[in-house]
Amino acid sequence: MNFCSHCGAPVSLKIPAGDSLPRHVCEQCGTIHYQNPKVVVGALAEWEDKILLCRRAIEPRYGFWTLPAGFMENNETCGEAALRETREEAGARIELGSMFTFIDLPHISQIHIIYRARLLDLEFSPGEESLDAILLGEADIPWDDIAFRSIDYTLKCFFEDRRKGEFELHSTSFAIPSPGTYR
Amino acid sequence: MNFCSHCGAPVSLKIPAGDSLPRHVCEQCGTIHYQNPKVVVGALAEWEDKILLCRRAIEPRYGFWTLPAGFMENNETCGEAALRETREEAGARIELGSMFTFIDLPHISQIHIIYRARLLDLEFSPGEESLDAILLGEADIPWDDIAFRSIDYTLKCFFEDRRKGEFELHSTSFAIPSPGTYR
Repeated sequence: MNFCSHCGAPVSLKIPAGDSLPRHVCEQCGTIHYQNPKVVVGALAEWEDKILLCRRAIEPRYGFWTLPAGFMENNETCGEAALRETREEAGARIELGSMFTFIDLPHISQIHIIYRARLLDLEFSPGEESLDAILLGEADIPWDDIAFRSIDYTLKCFFEDRRKGEFELHSTSFAIPSPGTYR
Repeated sequence: MNFCSHCGAPVSLKIPAGDSLPRHVCEQCGTIHYQNPKVVVGALAEWEDKILLCRRAIEPRYGFWTLPAGFMENNETCGEAALRETREEAGARIELGSMFTFIDLPHISQIHIIYRARLLDLEFSPGEESLDAILLGEADIPWDDIAFRSIDYTLKCFFEDRRKGEFELHSTSFAIPSPGTYR
């Protein structure tokens, strides 16, 4: 951030009175520009013993597999974000279950939240940001080609809980990026 | 938003190619400025049969009661945000339990997340943003003077679950602001 989005004057990094962290502060109009973590929301949608996965048609991680998920927008709920992303990326209609994974990624200032869900019909097809959208059983999950660590974690929790016959909320935090690739 | 925070040129509201919502787009450098919901995190800290409440020394809702909570910062986890806010607003050290309430407030593009917690000692005192920080039992909660609807909801869930002897995650969404006051 170089300029004030309110008045267009240069900003400088300083700790405002009564604050403890440096912020971008406008030299001219005094506006303090806070920057906050972003929330990514998605769905793990089931159909019989299979789950809905998408192959990414965009960077980062072009060609890798993920659950339908994306940045939450202003003026929507987390649940609405999960429904919207699933419709956009997989063309799929789902019924939402409860929150399943809640993952802090402080190194990239993101929270990833995945809900359990039930696919309502088989009328789905990949959206613009996906190369494929398909149903896969546990034996066919491409474990070496999962796009993000939070998705890998979510899938592993899911199959483990399914074996136990009991699903619970899994919270974790990934403080350090995986070696080699941006995740 | 009137100006590009990257190059200082005017921005205009338009739907970028491949997008479905209007965004602030820079006329000069092309940067798309996304705006996303903010996360507020706090703690419901117990000491014996009492809980830790703060009386606000700032607007909105000056003089009303709340749980220690505030905006999550970049590069911290939700749990770290709850510990930091409790230290800042109540001068209190806590041990964090599990996530207790998760509340969508789409009309103000916020998520409020409150964790259960255990107060570690009685060495606490109000921070700069609080007039008071005190321990209160259920009978003494100032129900008519609670600052925010999400905090009122969290307190009611807590006392109800405590009576049942079983605590669970409560998720809800408040789509419409309460009549009369900003919440």
